[in-house]
Amino acid sequence: MSDSLEIDGFDRAKKMAMICWSSDLDRVWPVLILASTAAASGLEVDVFFTFWGLRVLQKNEVRVTGKNWMQKAESIVDPGGTDRLKLGKIHFGGAGTKMIKMLANEYKVASPRELLEMAQDLGVRLHPCQMTMDLYGLTKDDFIEGVGIPIGAASFIDMAADADITLFI
Amino acid sequence: MSDSLEIDGFDRAKKMAMICWSSDLDRVWPVLILASTAAASGLEVDVFFTFWGLRVLQKNEVRVTGKNWMQKAESIVDPGGTDRLKLGKIHFGGAGTKMIKMLANEYKVASPRELLEMAQDLGVRLHPCQMTMDLYGLTKDDFIEGVGIPIGAASFIDMAADADITLFI
Amino acid sequence: MSDSLEIDGFDRAKKMAMICWSSDLDRVWPVLILASTAAASGLEVDVFFTFWGLRVLQKNEVRVTGKNWMQKAESIVDPGGTDRLKLGKIHFGGAGTKMIKMLANEYKVASPRELLEMAQDLGVRLHPCQMTMDLYGLTKDDFIEGVGIPIGAASFIDMAADADITLFI
Repeated sequence: MSDSLEIDGFDRAKKMAMICWSSDLDRVWPVLILASTAAASGLEVDVFFTFWGLRVLQKNEVRVTGKNWMQKAESIVDPGGTDRLKLGKIHFGGAGTKMIKMLANEYKVASPRELLEMAQDLGVRLHPCQMTMDLYGLTKDDFIEGVGIPIGAASFIDMAADADITLFI
Repeated sequence: MSDSLEIDGFDRAKKMAMICWSSDLDRVWPVLILASTAAASGLEVDVFFTFWGLRVLQKNEVRVTGKNWMQKAESIVDPGGTDRLKLGKIHFGGAGTKMIKMLANEYKVASPRELLEMAQDLGVRLHPCQMTMDLYGLTKDDFIEGVGIPIGAASFIDMAADADITLFI
Repeated sequence: MSDSLEIDGFDRAKKMAMICWSSDLDRVWPVLILASTAAASGLEVDVFFTFWGLRVLQKNEVRVTGKNWMQKAESIVDPGGTDRLKLGKIHFGGAGTKMIKMLANEYKVASPRELLEMAQDLGVRLHPCQMTMDLYGLTKDDFIEGVGIPIGAASFIDMAADADITLFI
Protein backbone atom coordinates (compact mmCIF):
# COMPACT_ATOMS: atom_id res chain seq x y z
CA MET A 1 0.00 0.00 0.00
CA SER A 2 2.52 2.57 -1.13
CA ASP A 3 0.11 5.34 -2.06
CA SER A 4 -3.51 6.33 -1.98
CA LEU A 5 -4.06 5.80 -5.68
CA GLU A 6 -3.30 2.17 -5.27
CA ILE A 7 -5.71 1.94 -2.38
CA ASP A 8 -8.38 3.76 -4.32
CA GLY A 9 -8.35 0.94 -6.81
CA PHE A 10 -7.04 2.80 -9.81
CA ASP A 11 -3.59 1.33 -10.08
CA ARG A 12 -4.09 -2.19 -8.90
CA ALA A 13 -6.26 -5.14 -9.77
CA LYS A 14 -9.11 -6.00 -7.42
CA LYS A 15 -8.36 -8.91 -5.11
CA MET A 16 -10.25 -11.85 -3.70
CA ALA A 17 -9.14 -13.92 -0.69
CA MET A 18 -11.06 -17.10 0.04
CA ILE A 19 -10.89 -19.88 2.58
CA CYS A 20 -11.64 -23.34 1.25
CA TRP A 21 -12.52 -25.05 4.53
CA SER A 22 -14.53 -28.02 3.29
CA SER A 23 -13.93 -31.10 1.18
CA ASP A 24 -17.65 -31.43 0.34
CA LEU A 25 -18.33 -31.42 -3.38
CA ASP A 26 -21.13 -28.89 -3.00
CA ARG A 27 -18.77 -26.43 -1.31
CA VAL A 28 -15.62 -27.09 -3.35
CA TRP A 29 -17.56 -26.46 -6.53
CA PRO A 30 -18.44 -22.85 -5.61
CA VAL A 31 -14.88 -22.25 -4.34
CA LEU A 32 -13.43 -23.27 -7.69
CA ILE A 33 -16.11 -21.62 -9.83
CA LEU A 34 -15.74 -18.33 -7.97
CA ALA A 35 -11.93 -18.51 -7.99
CA SER A 36 -11.60 -19.22 -11.71
CA THR A 37 -14.36 -16.76 -12.66
CA ALA A 38 -12.78 -14.00 -10.58
CA ALA A 39 -9.36 -14.68 -12.09
CA ALA A 40 -10.88 -14.66 -15.58
CA SER A 41 -12.44 -11.28 -14.71
CA GLY A 42 -9.00 -9.88 -13.91
CA LEU A 43 -8.96 -10.20 -10.12
CA GLU A 44 -5.97 -11.48 -8.19
CA VAL A 45 -7.15 -14.55 -6.32
CA ASP A 46 -5.74 -16.28 -3.24
CA VAL A 47 -7.31 -19.43 -1.85
CA PHE A 48 -6.28 -20.78 1.55
CA PHE A 49 -6.98 -24.52 1.84
CA THR A 50 -7.44 -25.44 5.48
CA PHE A 51 -9.09 -28.06 7.70
CA TRP A 52 -11.12 -30.50 5.56
CA GLY A 53 -10.47 -28.29 2.55
CA LEU A 54 -6.78 -29.16 2.46
CA ARG A 55 -7.78 -32.55 1.01
CA VAL A 56 -8.82 -30.80 -2.22
CA LEU A 57 -5.16 -30.23 -3.08
CA GLN A 58 -4.31 -33.91 -2.65
CA LYS A 59 -3.37 -35.90 -5.78
CA ASN A 60 -6.20 -38.15 -6.94
CA GLU A 61 -3.89 -41.16 -7.10
CA VAL A 62 -2.74 -40.79 -3.47
CA ARG A 63 -4.84 -42.94 -1.10
CA VAL A 64 -3.75 -43.43 2.51
CA THR A 65 -1.78 -40.50 3.92
CA GLY A 66 -0.20 -39.60 7.25
CA LYS A 67 2.47 -40.92 9.57
CA ASN A 68 0.57 -42.43 12.48
CA TRP A 69 -2.54 -44.58 12.75
CA MET A 70 -4.83 -41.65 13.59
CA GLN A 71 -3.75 -39.70 10.53
CA LYS A 72 -4.08 -42.82 8.37
CA ALA A 73 -7.57 -43.54 9.72
CA GLU A 74 -8.63 -39.95 9.06
CA SER A 75 -7.35 -40.12 5.47
CA ILE A 76 -9.47 -43.21 4.84
CA VAL A 77 -12.78 -41.74 6.04
CA ASP A 78 -12.03 -38.40 4.37
CA PRO A 79 -10.34 -39.33 1.08
CA GLY A 80 -8.72 -36.47 -0.83
CA GLY A 81 -8.42 -35.39 -4.43
CA THR A 82 -10.91 -33.52 -6.61
CA ASP A 83 -12.30 -36.75 -8.09
CA ARG A 84 -13.41 -38.23 -4.78
CA LEU A 85 -15.38 -35.35 -3.27
CA LYS A 86 -18.85 -36.18 -1.93
CA LEU A 87 -21.91 -34.00 -1.40
CA GLY A 88 -22.34 -32.69 2.15
CA LYS A 89 -26.10 -33.08 1.69
CA ILE A 90 -28.21 -35.80 0.01
CA HIS A 91 -25.08 -37.88 -0.72
CA PHE A 92 -27.31 -40.96 -0.17
CA GLY A 93 -24.45 -43.48 -0.06
CA GLY A 94 -23.18 -42.18 -3.37
CA ALA A 95 -26.42 -42.06 -5.40
CA GLY A 96 -27.05 -38.35 -4.83
CA THR A 97 -23.47 -37.39 -5.61
CA LYS A 98 -23.48 -39.51 -8.77
CA MET A 99 -26.75 -37.95 -9.94
CA ILE A 100 -25.53 -34.39 -9.44
CA LYS A 101 -22.35 -35.24 -11.36
CA MET A 102 -24.45 -36.67 -14.22
CA LEU A 103 -26.56 -33.51 -14.29
CA ALA A 104 -23.45 -31.33 -14.21
CA ASN A 105 -21.97 -33.28 -17.08
CA GLU A 106 -25.19 -33.02 -19.09
CA TYR A 107 -25.34 -29.26 -18.59
CA LYS A 108 -21.62 -28.70 -19.28
CA VAL A 109 -20.65 -27.64 -15.77
CA ALA A 110 -16.90 -28.26 -15.44
CA SER A 111 -15.82 -30.87 -12.90
CA PRO A 112 -13.80 -29.89 -9.81
CA ARG A 113 -10.69 -31.42 -11.39
CA GLU A 114 -11.10 -29.33 -14.55
CA LEU A 115 -11.94 -26.21 -12.56
CA LEU A 116 -8.85 -26.59 -10.37
CA GLU A 117 -6.64 -26.87 -13.46
CA MET A 118 -8.40 -23.91 -15.04
CA ALA A 119 -7.93 -21.89 -11.85
CA GLN A 120 -4.21 -22.65 -11.87
CA ASP A 121 -3.92 -21.71 -15.55
CA LEU A 122 -5.62 -18.40 -14.78
CA GLY A 123 -3.10 -17.64 -12.03
CA VAL A 124 -5.17 -18.40 -8.93
CA ARG A 125 -2.75 -18.89 -6.02
CA LEU A 126 -3.38 -22.06 -4.00
CA HIS A 127 -2.08 -21.96 -0.42
CA PRO A 128 -2.01 -25.10 1.74
CA CYS A 129 -2.40 -24.55 5.49
CA GLN A 130 0.77 -25.57 7.34
CA MET A 131 -1.06 -26.37 10.59
CA THR A 132 -3.48 -28.72 8.84
CA MET A 133 -0.60 -30.41 6.99
CA ASP A 134 0.96 -31.13 10.40
CA LEU A 135 -2.34 -32.45 11.79
CA TYR A 136 -2.93 -34.74 8.81
CA GLY A 137 0.73 -35.67 8.32
CA LEU A 138 0.50 -34.48 4.69
CA THR A 139 3.64 -33.52 2.81
CA LYS A 140 4.33 -31.57 -0.39
CA ASP A 141 4.50 -34.88 -2.26
CA ASP A 142 0.83 -35.60 -1.49
CA PHE A 143 -0.29 -32.46 -3.35
CA ILE A 144 -0.87 -31.75 -7.02
CA GLU A 145 1.72 -29.76 -8.99
CA GLY A 146 1.81 -25.98 -8.75
CA VAL A 147 0.65 -25.54 -5.16
CA GLY A 148 2.23 -22.62 -3.28
CA ILE A 149 4.37 -22.91 -0.17
CA PRO A 150 2.45 -23.74 3.01
CA ILE A 151 1.26 -20.72 4.99
CA GLY A 152 -0.45 -20.01 8.29
CA ALA A 153 -3.46 -17.99 9.40
CA ALA A 154 -1.38 -14.81 9.78
CA SER A 155 -0.44 -14.84 6.09
CA PHE A 156 -4.06 -15.36 5.12
CA ILE A 157 -5.11 -12.42 7.32
CA ASP A 158 -2.57 -10.24 5.49
CA MET A 159 -4.03 -11.23 2.13
CA ALA A 160 -7.60 -10.79 3.27
CA ALA A 161 -7.00 -7.39 4.86
CA ASP A 162 -5.93 -6.17 1.45
CA ALA A 163 -8.65 -7.92 -0.55
CA ASP A 164 -11.90 -6.54 -1.97
CA ILE A 165 -13.79 -9.81 -1.60
CA THR A 166 -13.35 -12.15 1.37
CA LEU A 167 -15.27 -15.40 1.67
CA PHE A 168 -15.22 -18.45 3.93
CA ILE A 169 -16.73 -21.43 2.08
CA MET B 1 -16.42 3.90 -10.08
CA SER B 2 -16.30 7.26 -11.82
CA ASP B 3 -14.34 9.17 -9.21
CA SER B 4 -12.49 8.84 -5.97
CA LEU B 5 -15.18 10.45 -3.87
CA GLU B 6 -17.53 7.71 -4.79
CA ILE B 7 -14.95 5.11 -3.91
CA ASP B 8 -14.19 6.82 -0.64
CA GLY B 9 -17.73 6.15 0.40
CA PHE B 10 -18.98 9.71 0.61
CA ASP B 11 -21.28 9.81 -2.37
CA ARG B 12 -22.61 6.33 -2.50
CA ALA B 13 -24.44 3.99 -0.17
CA LYS B 14 -22.51 1.12 1.37
CA LYS B 15 -23.09 -2.20 -0.35
CA MET B 16 -23.46 -5.81 0.71
CA ALA B 17 -23.13 -8.82 -1.63
CA MET B 18 -24.12 -12.21 -0.26
CA ILE B 19 -24.27 -15.74 -1.56
CA CYS B 20 -27.22 -17.79 -0.35
CA TRP B 21 -25.83 -21.27 -0.99
CA SER B 22 -27.99 -23.36 1.31
CA SER B 23 -31.64 -24.25 1.66
CA ASP B 24 -31.25 -25.11 5.35
CA LEU B 25 -33.57 -23.12 7.59
CA ASP B 26 -30.74 -22.24 9.98
CA ARG B 27 -28.72 -20.70 7.13
CA VAL B 28 -31.55 -19.07 5.19
CA TRP B 29 -32.69 -17.30 8.33
CA PRO B 30 -29.40 -15.38 8.76
CA VAL B 31 -29.28 -14.62 5.02
CA LEU B 32 -32.70 -13.00 5.15
CA ILE B 33 -32.22 -11.28 8.51
CA LEU B 34 -28.89 -9.78 7.41
CA ALA B 35 -30.24 -8.79 3.98
CA SER B 36 -33.34 -7.04 5.29
CA THR B 37 -31.50 -5.44 8.21
CA ALA B 38 -28.76 -4.11 5.93
CA ALA B 39 -31.32 -2.73 3.50
CA ALA B 40 -33.20 -1.10 6.38
CA SER B 41 -29.90 0.47 7.45
CA GLY B 42 -29.51 2.06 4.02
CA LEU B 43 -27.16 -0.40 2.34
CA GLU B 44 -27.64 -1.63 -1.20
CA VAL B 45 -28.01 -5.39 -0.98
CA ASP B 46 -27.50 -8.09 -3.62
CA VAL B 47 -28.14 -11.75 -2.85
CA PHE B 48 -27.03 -14.47 -5.26
CA PHE B 49 -29.09 -17.66 -4.82
CA THR B 50 -27.06 -20.63 -5.99
CA PHE B 51 -26.76 -24.40 -5.50
CA TRP B 52 -29.17 -25.56 -2.77
CA GLY B 53 -29.97 -21.91 -2.03
CA LEU B 54 -31.78 -21.45 -5.32
CA ARG B 55 -34.69 -23.44 -3.84
CA VAL B 56 -35.41 -20.52 -1.48
CA LEU B 57 -36.78 -18.51 -4.40
CA GLN B 58 -39.18 -21.28 -5.39
CA LYS B 59 -42.91 -20.66 -4.92
CA ASN B 60 -44.29 -22.49 -1.89
CA GLU B 61 -47.11 -23.99 -3.94
CA VAL B 62 -44.77 -25.51 -6.54
CA ARG B 63 -43.91 -29.14 -5.71
CA VAL B 64 -42.12 -31.32 -8.27
CA THR B 65 -39.85 -29.36 -10.60
CA GLY B 66 -37.49 -30.19 -13.48
CA LYS B 67 -37.64 -31.76 -16.89
CA ASN B 68 -36.03 -35.17 -16.50
CA TRP B 69 -36.30 -37.88 -13.82
CA MET B 70 -33.07 -36.83 -12.08
CA GLN B 71 -34.22 -33.26 -11.69
CA LYS B 72 -37.63 -34.41 -10.50
CA ALA B 73 -36.06 -36.78 -7.96
CA GLU B 74 -33.81 -34.00 -6.66
CA SER B 75 -36.76 -31.65 -6.25
CA ILE B 76 -38.56 -34.21 -4.10
CA VAL B 77 -35.71 -34.79 -1.62
CA ASP B 78 -34.91 -31.06 -1.54
CA PRO B 79 -38.30 -29.33 -1.67
CA GLY B 80 -38.23 -25.59 -2.25
CA GLY B 81 -40.05 -22.55 -0.94
CA THR B 82 -39.52 -20.60 2.26
CA ASP B 83 -42.22 -22.57 4.12
CA ARG B 84 -40.58 -25.96 3.65
CA LEU B 85 -37.01 -25.26 4.83
CA LYS B 86 -35.55 -27.69 7.35
CA LEU B 87 -32.79 -27.27 9.92
CA GLY B 88 -29.37 -28.52 8.77
CA LYS B 89 -28.71 -29.64 12.36
CA ILE B 90 -30.99 -31.31 14.93
CA HIS B 91 -33.85 -31.52 12.41
CA PHE B 92 -34.80 -34.82 14.15
CA GLY B 93 -37.26 -35.95 11.49
CA GLY B 94 -39.10 -32.65 11.79
CA ALA B 95 -39.38 -32.31 15.58
CA GLY B 96 -36.34 -30.05 15.95
CA THR B 97 -37.37 -27.80 13.08
CA LYS B 98 -40.91 -27.54 14.43
CA MET B 99 -39.65 -26.64 17.91
CA ILE B 100 -37.35 -23.91 16.63
CA LYS B 101 -40.23 -22.47 14.59
CA MET B 102 -42.45 -22.49 17.69
CA LEU B 103 -39.76 -20.69 19.68
CA ALA B 104 -39.25 -18.19 16.86
CA ASN B 105 -42.97 -17.53 16.76
CA GLU B 106 -43.14 -17.09 20.53
CA TYR B 107 -40.27 -14.59 20.50
CA LYS B 108 -41.59 -12.68 17.48
CA VAL B 109 -38.80 -13.65 15.08
CA ALA B 110 -40.17 -13.20 11.56
CA SER B 111 -40.51 -16.35 9.45
CA PRO B 112 -38.39 -16.83 6.30
CA ARG B 113 -41.47 -16.13 4.16
CA GLU B 114 -42.11 -12.83 5.95
CA LEU B 115 -38.43 -11.90 5.87
CA LEU B 116 -38.17 -12.55 2.14
CA GLU B 117 -41.17 -10.31 1.49
CA MET B 118 -39.72 -7.67 3.78
CA ALA B 119 -36.37 -7.87 2.01
CA GLN B 120 -38.08 -7.34 -1.36
CA ASP B 121 -40.05 -4.39 0.02
CA LEU B 122 -36.80 -2.86 1.25
CA GLY B 123 -35.22 -3.15 -2.19
CA VAL B 124 -32.96 -6.16 -1.69
CA ARG B 125 -32.07 -7.53 -5.14
CA LEU B 126 -32.58 -11.29 -5.49
CA HIS B 127 -30.50 -12.95 -8.22
CA PRO B 128 -31.12 -16.57 -9.24
CA CYS B 129 -28.07 -18.49 -10.52
CA GLN B 130 -28.50 -19.41 -14.20
CA MET B 131 -26.23 -22.47 -13.97
CA THR B 132 -28.20 -23.91 -11.05
CA MET B 133 -31.48 -23.24 -12.87
CA ASP B 134 -30.14 -25.35 -15.76
CA LEU B 135 -29.01 -28.12 -13.40
CA TYR B 136 -32.36 -28.24 -11.62
CA GLY B 137 -34.46 -27.58 -14.71
CA LEU B 138 -36.08 -24.63 -12.92
CA THR B 139 -37.72 -21.87 -14.92
CA LYS B 140 -38.83 -18.32 -14.12
CA ASP B 141 -42.36 -19.65 -13.51
CA ASP B 142 -41.14 -21.72 -10.55
CA PHE B 143 -39.98 -18.59 -8.71
CA ILE B 144 -41.82 -16.06 -6.57
CA GLU B 145 -42.69 -12.65 -8.03
CA GLY B 146 -40.06 -9.93 -8.17
CA VAL B 147 -36.96 -12.04 -8.67
CA GLY B 148 -34.24 -10.49 -10.87
CA ILE B 149 -33.00 -11.91 -14.15
CA PRO B 150 -30.78 -14.99 -13.81
CA ILE B 151 -27.06 -14.22 -13.55
CA GLY B 152 -23.80 -16.14 -13.44
CA ALA B 153 -20.75 -16.16 -11.18
CA ALA B 154 -19.05 -13.39 -13.17
CA SER B 155 -21.88 -10.96 -12.42
CA PHE B 156 -21.74 -11.83 -8.75
CA ILE B 157 -17.97 -11.24 -8.71
CA ASP B 158 -18.58 -7.78 -10.17
CA MET B 159 -21.07 -6.95 -7.43
CA ALA B 160 -18.86 -8.35 -4.69
CA ALA B 161 -15.72 -6.55 -5.89
CA ASP B 162 -17.58 -3.31 -5.35
CA ALA B 163 -19.23 -4.25 -2.05
CA ASP B 164 -18.25 -3.33 1.50
CA ILE B 165 -19.55 -6.56 3.00
CA THR B 166 -19.20 -9.95 1.28
CA LEU B 167 -20.54 -13.13 2.84
CA PHE B 168 -21.02 -16.75 1.79
CA ILE B 169 -23.76 -18.34 3.90
CA MET C 1 -15.44 7.90 9.17
CA SER C 2 -14.50 11.45 9.97
CA ASP C 3 -12.05 12.02 7.13
CA SER C 4 -10.69 10.44 4.02
CA LEU C 5 -7.33 9.59 5.49
CA GLU C 6 -9.01 7.37 7.98
CA ILE C 7 -10.95 5.66 5.22
CA ASP C 8 -7.84 5.26 3.12
CA GLY C 9 -6.41 3.12 5.86
CA PHE C 10 -3.54 5.33 6.93
CA ASP C 11 -4.74 6.48 10.31
CA ARG C 12 -6.69 3.52 11.54
CA ALA C 13 -6.08 -0.15 12.15
CA LYS C 14 -7.55 -2.65 9.71
CA LYS C 15 -10.73 -4.31 10.94
CA MET C 16 -12.26 -7.75 10.77
CA ALA C 17 -15.94 -8.54 11.44
CA MET C 18 -16.92 -12.19 11.69
CA ILE C 19 -20.08 -14.13 12.34
CA CYS C 20 -19.67 -17.25 14.45
CA TRP C 21 -22.85 -19.08 13.43
CA SER C 22 -21.97 -22.65 14.36
CA SER C 23 -21.16 -24.60 17.48
CA ASP C 24 -19.32 -27.30 15.51
CA LEU C 25 -15.74 -27.80 16.66
CA ASP C 26 -14.44 -27.71 13.09
CA ARG C 27 -16.03 -24.28 12.52
CA VAL C 28 -15.36 -22.74 15.93
CA TRP C 29 -11.68 -23.60 15.63
CA PRO C 30 -11.17 -21.44 12.50
CA VAL C 31 -13.27 -18.63 14.02
CA LEU C 32 -11.03 -18.49 17.06
CA ILE C 33 -7.75 -19.04 15.20
CA LEU C 34 -8.58 -16.29 12.69
CA ALA C 35 -9.84 -13.92 15.42
CA SER C 36 -6.80 -14.29 17.67
CA THR C 37 -4.34 -14.26 14.76
CA ALA C 38 -5.89 -11.12 13.30
CA ALA C 39 -5.83 -9.40 16.69
CA ALA C 40 -2.20 -10.44 17.15
CA SER C 41 -1.48 -8.90 13.73
CA GLY C 42 -2.89 -5.58 14.89
CA LEU C 43 -6.41 -5.75 13.47
CA GLU C 44 -9.48 -4.71 15.41
CA VAL C 45 -11.69 -7.78 15.60
CA ASP C 46 -15.42 -8.10 16.25
CA VAL C 47 -17.10 -11.50 16.44
CA PHE C 48 -20.89 -11.79 16.46
CA PHE C 49 -22.04 -15.06 18.06
CA THR C 50 -25.44 -16.01 16.72
CA PHE C 51 -27.69 -19.05 16.18
CA TRP C 52 -25.83 -22.25 17.15
CA GLY C 53 -22.66 -20.18 17.59
CA LEU C 54 -24.02 -18.42 20.66
CA ARG C 55 -23.40 -21.64 22.62
CA VAL C 56 -19.64 -21.05 22.28
CA LEU C 57 -19.87 -18.22 24.81
CA GLN C 58 -21.61 -20.43 27.36
CA LYS C 59 -19.69 -21.33 30.52
CA ASN C 60 -18.39 -24.90 30.43
CA GLU C 61 -19.88 -25.65 33.82
CA VAL C 62 -23.40 -24.58 32.83
CA ARG C 63 -25.50 -27.55 31.62
CA VAL C 64 -29.24 -27.17 31.09
CA THR C 65 -30.28 -23.65 30.10
CA GLY C 66 -33.52 -21.90 29.20
CA LYS C 67 -36.84 -21.09 30.80
CA ASN C 68 -39.33 -23.42 29.13
CA TRP C 69 -39.19 -27.11 28.15
CA MET C 70 -38.35 -26.40 24.51
CA GLN C 71 -35.37 -24.27 25.43
CA LYS C 72 -34.24 -26.85 27.97
CA ALA C 73 -34.54 -29.66 25.44
CA GLU C 74 -32.54 -27.69 22.88
CA SER C 75 -29.79 -27.01 25.41
CA ILE C 76 -29.43 -30.74 26.06
CA VAL C 77 -29.02 -31.80 22.42
CA ASP C 78 -26.78 -28.81 21.69
CA PRO C 79 -24.64 -28.44 24.82
CA GLY C 80 -22.60 -25.24 25.06
CA GLY C 81 -19.13 -24.26 26.18
CA THR C 82 -15.81 -24.52 24.35
CA ASP C 83 -14.98 -27.88 25.94
CA ARG C 84 -18.06 -29.70 24.63
CA LEU C 85 -17.94 -28.80 20.92
CA LYS C 86 -18.28 -31.69 18.48
CA LEU C 87 -17.13 -32.07 14.89
CA GLY C 88 -19.81 -31.33 12.29
CA LYS C 89 -18.31 -34.09 10.14
CA ILE C 90 -16.93 -37.56 11.06
CA HIS C 91 -17.88 -37.06 14.71
CA PHE C 92 -18.56 -40.84 14.80
CA GLY C 93 -20.33 -40.86 18.16
CA GLY C 94 -17.36 -39.07 19.70
CA ALA C 95 -14.47 -41.14 18.29
CA GLY C 96 -13.69 -38.77 15.44
CA THR C 97 -13.85 -35.69 17.64
CA LYS C 98 -11.63 -37.34 20.25
CA MET C 99 -9.07 -38.33 17.62
CA ILE C 100 -8.87 -34.84 16.14
CA LYS C 101 -8.40 -33.41 19.64
CA MET C 102 -5.59 -35.90 20.29
CA LEU C 103 -3.90 -34.93 17.02
CA ALA C 104 -4.34 -31.23 17.81
CA ASN C 105 -2.80 -31.76 21.22
CA GLU C 106 0.12 -33.71 19.75
CA TYR C 107 0.83 -30.97 17.21
CA LYS C 108 0.44 -28.13 19.72
CA VAL C 109 -2.73 -26.63 18.23
CA ALA C 110 -4.40 -24.62 21.00
CA SER C 111 -7.80 -25.84 22.18
CA PRO C 112 -10.94 -23.72 21.63
CA ARG C 113 -10.98 -22.85 25.34
CA GLU C 114 -7.37 -21.61 25.19
CA LEU C 115 -7.98 -19.78 21.92
CA LEU C 116 -11.03 -18.01 23.30
CA GLU C 117 -9.05 -16.81 26.32
CA MET C 118 -6.20 -15.74 24.05
CA ALA C 119 -8.63 -13.86 21.80
CA GLN C 120 -10.02 -12.00 24.80
CA ASP C 121 -6.52 -11.15 26.03
CA LEU C 122 -5.70 -9.77 22.59
CA GLY C 123 -8.74 -7.50 22.65
CA VAL C 124 -11.10 -9.41 20.36
CA ARG C 125 -14.65 -8.14 21.03
CA LEU C 126 -17.20 -10.91 21.60
CA HIS C 127 -20.81 -9.94 20.88
CA PRO C 128 -23.70 -12.23 21.83
CA CYS C 129 -26.79 -12.03 19.61
CA GLN C 130 -29.79 -10.68 21.56
CA MET C 131 -32.36 -12.46 19.39
CA THR C 132 -30.69 -15.83 19.87
CA MET C 133 -30.46 -15.22 23.62
CA ASP C 134 -34.22 -14.72 23.64
CA LEU C 135 -34.80 -17.87 21.56
CA TYR C 136 -32.60 -20.00 23.79
CA GLY C 137 -33.61 -18.31 27.04
CA LEU C 138 -29.92 -17.60 27.77
CA THR C 139 -28.95 -14.83 30.16
CA LYS C 140 -25.72 -12.95 30.85
CA ASP C 141 -25.06 -15.35 33.75
CA ASP C 142 -24.79 -18.30 31.35
CA PHE C 143 -21.84 -16.68 29.54
CA ILE C 144 -18.13 -16.58 30.31
CA GLU C 145 -16.60 -13.41 31.75
CA GLY C 146 -15.74 -10.51 29.49
CA VAL C 147 -18.46 -10.89 26.91
CA GLY C 148 -19.81 -7.63 25.42
CA ILE C 149 -23.38 -6.40 25.70
CA PRO C 150 -25.88 -8.26 23.51
CA ILE C 151 -26.37 -6.74 20.07
CA GLY C 152 -28.61 -7.28 17.06
CA ALA C 153 -28.04 -7.73 13.33
CA ALA C 154 -28.12 -3.97 12.71
CA SER C 155 -25.11 -3.41 14.97
CA PHE C 156 -23.22 -6.20 13.24
CA ILE C 157 -24.00 -4.66 9.83
CA ASP C 158 -22.53 -1.37 11.07
CA MET C 159 -19.32 -3.11 12.13
CA ALA C 160 -19.08 -5.12 8.93
CA ALA C 161 -19.71 -2.14 6.65
CA ASP C 162 -16.61 -0.58 8.13
CA ALA C 163 -14.45 -3.69 8.19
CA ASP C 164 -11.74 -4.81 5.77
CA ILE C 165 -12.42 -8.51 6.25
CA THR C 166 -15.95 -9.94 6.62
CA LEU C 167 -16.56 -13.66 7.11
CA PHE C 168 -19.51 -15.89 7.96
CA ILE C 169 -18.25 -19.14 9.49
